[in-house]
Amino acid sequence: MPDASPTKWHLGHTSWFFETFILDRELPGYRRFDPQYAILFNSYYNTVGPQHPRPERGLLTRPSLDEVRAYRGHVDRAVLGFLEGASTPSRPSLEVLRIGLHHEQQHQELLLTDVKHLFSRNPLHPAYRECPETPAGDVKPVGWHHYPEGLQWTGHTGDGFSFDNETPRHRVFVEAFEIASRQVTNAEFLAFIEAGGYDRAELWLSDGWTAVNSARLTVPLYWERHDGAWRTHTLSGLHTLRLDEPVCHVSYYEADAYARWAGARLPTEAEWEVASPGQGGGENFLEDGRLHPVPAPPADDGPAQLLGNLWEWTQSPYAAYPGYAPPDGALGEYNGKFMCNQMVLRGGSCATPRSHIRGTYRNFFPPDARWQFSGIRLARDAR
Amino acid sequence: MPDASPTKWHLGHTSWFFETFILDRELPGYRRFDPQYAILFNSYYNTVGPQHPRPERGLLTRPSLDEVRAYRGHVDRAVLGFLEGASTPSRPSLEVLRIGLHHEQQHQELLLTDVKHLFSRNPLHPAYRECPETPAGDVKPVGWHHYPEGLQWTGHTGDGFSFDNETPRHRVFVEAFEIASRQVTNAEFLAFIEAGGYDRAELWLSDGWTAVNSARLTVPLYWERHDGAWRTHTLSGLHTLRLDEPVCHVSYYEADAYARWAGARLPTEAEWEVASPGQGGGENFLEDGRLHPVPAPPADDGPAQLLGNLWEWTQSPYAAYPGYAPPDGALGEYNGKFMCNQMVLRGGSCATPRSHIRGTYRNFFPPDARWQFSGIRLARDAR
Amino acid sequence: MPDASPTKWHLGHTSWFFETFILDRELPGYRRFDPQYAILFNSYYNTVGPQHPRPERGLLTRPSLDEVRAYRGHVDRAVLGFLEGASTPSRPSLEVLRIGLHHEQQHQELLLTDVKHLFSRNPLHPAYRECPETPAGDVKPVGWHHYPEGLQWTGHTGDGFSFDNETPRHRVFVEAFEIASRQVTNAEFLAFIEAGGYDRAELWLSDGWTAVNSARLTVPLYWERHDGAWRTHTLSGLHTLRLDEPVCHVSYYEADAYARWAGARLPTEAEWEVASPGQGGGENFLEDGRLHPVPAPPADDGPAQLLGNLWEWTQSPYAAYPGYAPPDGALGEYNGKFMCNQMVLRGGSCATPRSHIRGTYRNFFPPDARWQFSGIRLARDAR
Amino acid sequence: MPDASPTKWHLGHTSWFFETFILDRELPGYRRFDPQYAILFNSYYNTVGPQHPRPERGLLTRPSLDEVRAYRGHVDRAVLGFLEGASTPSRPSLEVLRIGLHHEQQHQELLLTDVKHLFSRNPLHPAYRECPETPAGDVKPVGWHHYPEGLQWTGHTGDGFSFDNETPRHRVFVEAFEIASRQVTNAEFLAFIEAGGYDRAELWLSDGWTAVNSARLTVPLYWERHDGAWRTHTLSGLHTLRLDEPVCHVSYYEADAYARWAGARLPTEAEWEVASPGQGGGENFLEDGRLHPVPAPPADDGPAQLLGNLWEWTQSPYAAYPGYAPPDGALGEYNGKFMCNQMVLRGGSCATPRSHIRGTYRNFFPPDARWQFSGIRLARDAR
Repeated sequence: MPDASPTKWHLGHTSWFFETFILDRELPGYRRFDPQYAILFNSYYNTVGPQHPRPERGLLTRPSLDEVRAYRGHVDRAVLGFLEGASTPSRPSLEVLRIGLHHEQQHQELLLTDVKHLFSRNPLHPAYRECPETPAGDVKPVGWHHYPEGLQWTGHTGDGFSFDNETPRHRVFVEAFEIASRQVTNAEFLAFIEAGGYDRAELWLSDGWTAVNSARLTVPLYWERHDGAWRTHTLSGLHTLRLDEPVCHVSYYEADAYARWAGARLPTEAEWEVASPGQGGGENFLEDGRLHPVPAPPADDGPAQLLGNLWEWTQSPYAAYPGYAPPDGALGEYNGKFMCNQMVLRGGSCATPRSHIRGTYRNFFPPDARWQFSGIRLARDAR
Repeated sequence: MPDASPTKWHLGHTSWFFETFILDRELPGYRRFDPQYAILFNSYYNTVGPQHPRPERGLLTRPSLDEVRAYRGHVDRAVLGFLEGASTPSRPSLEVLRIGLHHEQQHQELLLTDVKHLFSRNPLHPAYRECPETPAGDVKPVGWHHYPEGLQWTGHTGDGFSFDNETPRHRVFVEAFEIASRQVTNAEFLAFIEAGGYDRAELWLSDGWTAVNSARLTVPLYWERHDGAWRTHTLSGLHTLRLDEPVCHVSYYEADAYARWAGARLPTEAEWEVASPGQGGGENFLEDGRLHPVPAPPADDGPAQLLGNLWEWTQSPYAAYPGYAPPDGALGEYNGKFMCNQMVLRGGSCATPRSHIRGTYRNFFPPDARWQFSGIRLARDAR
Repeated sequence: MPDASPTKWHLGHTSWFFETFILDRELPGYRRFDPQYAILFNSYYNTVGPQHPRPERGLLTRPSLDEVRAYRGHVDRAVLGFLEGASTPSRPSLEVLRIGLHHEQQHQELLLTDVKHLFSRNPLHPAYRECPETPAGDVKPVGWHHYPEGLQWTGHTGDGFSFDNETPRHRVFVEAFEIASRQVTNAEFLAFIEAGGYDRAELWLSDGWTAVNSARLTVPLYWERHDGAWRTHTLSGLHTLRLDEPVCHVSYYEADAYARWAGARLPTEAEWEVASPGQGGGENFLEDGRLHPVPAPPADDGPAQLLGNLWEWTQSPYAAYPGYAPPDGALGEYNGKFMCNQMVLRGGSCATPRSHIRGTYRNFFPPDARWQFSGIRLARDAR
Repeated sequence: MPDASPTKWHLGHTSWFFETFILDRELPGYRRFDPQYAILFNSYYNTVGPQHPRPERGLLTRPSLDEVRAYRGHVDRAVLGFLEGASTPSRPSLEVLRIGLHHEQQHQELLLTDVKHLFSRNPLHPAYRECPETPAGDVKPVGWHHYPEGLQWTGHTGDGFSFDNETPRHRVFVEAFEIASRQVTNAEFLAFIEAGGYDRAELWLSDGWTAVNSARLTVPLYWERHDGAWRTHTLSGLHTLRLDEPVCHVSYYEADAYARWAGARLPTEAEWEVASPGQGGGENFLEDGRLHPVPAPPADDGPAQLLGNLWEWTQSPYAAYPGYAPPDGALGEYNGKFMCNQMVLRGGSCATPRSHIRGTYRNFFPPDARWQFSGIRLARDAR
């Protein structure tokens, strides 16, 4: 898949980030491990220089994994030397270093979703690793949490780290709304399928209808029918589909069509942010080691699993906040230039490091993307 | 071009609209002119039935133009009979009829932009008709009109006709902003080109950069270089490019890149609406017969030409207003299902009937579309 | 379809041929009707100059049909003037004139096949004109005509007109073979379909298997199933498929797969030519007005319908005869540059003028082409 | 590139061949190493079963190289056991075994050409291995060897191994012709380039002209301009282009255009075979370890390097010999189903094992293929 990259490339690219934005600029006398890596491991920074074409990353049999590991060691040592060196690093340098760490967390997640996709195309269905099972349990019917209308502050306060696209903090008028107590389950999504959801044009956005028909989609990504039962490909191999788990690997188009069928809609990102807990909440992150979404807990005291478990599609196109200005230089390309033709997802997933996510965090993917851990949270106008 | 349709098709489709949504449903005993036209002239209403593929509309050598005209006469007579008949038409019927009239106005404009595109691909460069020239004049430097921050009501009040996508009227918090006194001129856009605007990745959205490079775009649509001078294709044939006229036939990507280069940005649709005059303002509409944008007047008392002249790209993705609900049935497909992957344009153009446009009117096209009369209005955050 | 051209274009192109290769070169003081037509109506002669892109021919709403007819009149009068003028035309000029006449015959046939295809995509299924029906009759089982091995002269003798690709006459060693007494019928081809012919990979060339699967082909072009019966689109509209008629509008891939299934093979072009009658034989040409293939006659005295009725795919790739040299100049592009990736068809069809065809005539199309009147004649090695 | 496969796949596929066509059928009680490999390593044998899609072979990170090696060991041991077992293998089994060995030789060559291509796309330009240099030397001007007209026997006699497509031996009438004493050099091909060869439509086949223009080809594959000099990518890395070496990695289209420019043509495969030496002749094979073509020797006693060095494009489309019948069963798919849209190459290359090639050997590739070691031998009609 052209959107996915090999593991080796992720390993090289995250080191390249530190080498390019810290070592090469700030560490006097630093010698690049291999000057040619500047092209190989540049993802999309036109300001920095040319890039090896993304769809050809899979062809890079050289450098070998050992060489890439040596590259990482070289860069890691140099960064440590930089931090522990005679002269104290400047505040801007430390700021870039912090971005580099969050950048690496993003690639930890992508590395997993890309491996998952790669293994899914392999008829051997390899497992990335064994993961602990979650006990089956009753999932309660959806409840609705109500929020009154009002002028709301959204976006990041600037206290602690955030990406530029979460700023500036600004006011949004939000009408009264309700948000579902949990994510949509596989059982619920199966009901949509069995009701002919993929065959009813009136449920779909025009582009979504074209997309599912041209790709002949009839189920979420990784689902397959085998001997009369549904199975799904996971990072621990092929498993029987569990009906209590939240539906995963749906596109924005599928999430939107499901919501319409269910008589609801997707939340806006402002609504989602109003409902979301502060940093530190949530459950089922990368560190939990499951690498798979878990059923909703029986708790009743607020919408569950807003952080962690699955990214949730919002109905908000990814756009600049009022007053948004990308940073100068190459890091200005990090987020701003993608503000078109993508939709915002919120909340992180079972493949996101816990310390990486927060209520204001804005992820974004094109509306047909399905290989991320993306699920559905419903919302509706207040009655 | 797959997005454009032949004139004959527009003529048939607008009659089909009345036949399908009024006559066939409301007029007892109405007989369709030709039942097979139901497929031929259905544009995109899945609820109504199957459609002849859009890119194949150009292949329809039958029915002939005479037959389509006979079809129009048949439908027109039946609609008049329906209005003048024994029983008074119901209010919903009259509402659909009114939509049909506005629908026909939209296709009047599309018919012109489609003919313009078709003729541009013909090496004979035919003229659609002769149009009056506008006298050349001095265009003043851009001035900036200031608007304070505040909670603004936007969207249509429901008083008079509007399309569903302009409703419901709702509150938006708008930060203080400034809007340019006039549209960007060809002279200004040429300066962007001469400054290497099409070659500087840092000015472009990522998708825009891909689009201009893969299509090798270096100038607006219809521009061509001839003997050291720029010419542009118009509905009255090929003409020397006038520097005082506003730049036209640019994509959202080009408008956005120009704005970035100029140290400004495009307005949001809420900002645009705050600045726009009420219905009835503006100049240079279809009825003026120029079929081409005219230079800005020297007036100083507000942003000029917000209505008429050229559609203006906003930075707002086309999305549902809070509380938006499409009508039931097939007419629900009119606007709602396109709310993805498109950008809002505002204000109408020299090909728009004057009575068709208003300040709350939302037009929408994909960000790479260039064949509409689309231009650039700059905005910026208030200093 | 990118391979087909509008009727108007065929009319203009055939006049352009005379204007370009005769009038403009040989008639002193000749003035072109419109210099811009040189680009519009040039098909593929790079030596002559640039060409309007083939797939865009359908977009040429200008010049109008009346203008093209005026162009034809202008050229026709000038050619007559040239022939009847004071100075006798040179022998090479007359030779080019003769090519122009045969060229126009080719376009008479293409005009019909292109109209047939265009009308087939129109849901109204217009008829080009009413054509006489052929009485149904018994078609005899296939018989086999035997030819001994030997060194055969093939290609044109130079006595009378031929295209360059039929020359030079040369020797080919042909093994003993047998050729079928008639073309394959719809009944026989239906048996192939019902035996799963389109689903059995082992019957197909590798490229053919890819072609039928990617285009999801399961029947010949223009066949459709309606209320449990087969219909086929013809130049006189939709008709019930007649089982006694020869199968038509099959690709080389389909002809080859059918032959393999039937335990036979397609003839080589040398075999075909050895079996074919001299000029003047055959039946069911354009002049007969049927525009549709007719069942084989009961005659027994040789392979029937080798000339006329349907073009017959041979297993011979279209290649140069030994010693072949294209003419100098632009007419060298007429045939020679297409000698790659195409297969030879022989014998003419019901849309071919009788005086146009002969035993040595080589037609050629890519192996996936189906919109010509192409059928199947079987051959086999002598037992 | 979709035509190339990873090294690991070649290793697995060649073992799969023995497992599928020998062990699984002939060795009682044989257990497949892994039943799922039957899909992974099947190239194109529809009769045997489904295949993993060719363009996705590069995604198979599992099985690992170690597992594939274990698979090869498993199969190799079983084949040896089969040969040395209690019951003497049948003659047909031995025949298939022999095909398997020649099949493996073909993949040895493909493995090298695929690695060469893969490494060429890597900005690091890795070397596969160091290869001995050939001393520079004078290359004599081309001489022409004359062959009289006559009825010639071509194809394999059946004495020793051949592939099915080389049979049956049959008679071809060959006109008098001349063949060049050596292959075309880089110096000669550069003259073609400098004469504008890639820009002159009249030199190219129509499909070739489309191909070079759509892919913007201006030089052979692997050539690049660097600091005013030509370099070429080889299996030992990037090297300065040597003018005395034969031109390599050209398509049929380029070979054909060059020949036309040079006032000659490519040989037919019958001509080539008439001129070729018997098995055992030639020089510069895989065993010589150069993995790169060498300049022609000064020898005068016949066309040099017909066997070895570089494959030579012929003007013959790949088609069945008269009386050709593929073997029954899956091995019938080996050669016969590709007899369309490909051109014959003759003679083997510097990557071909010496024992693999012979005068009757028919290789075949589509006319736009360039990644094989393909060069140009000229021919012409006898004066």
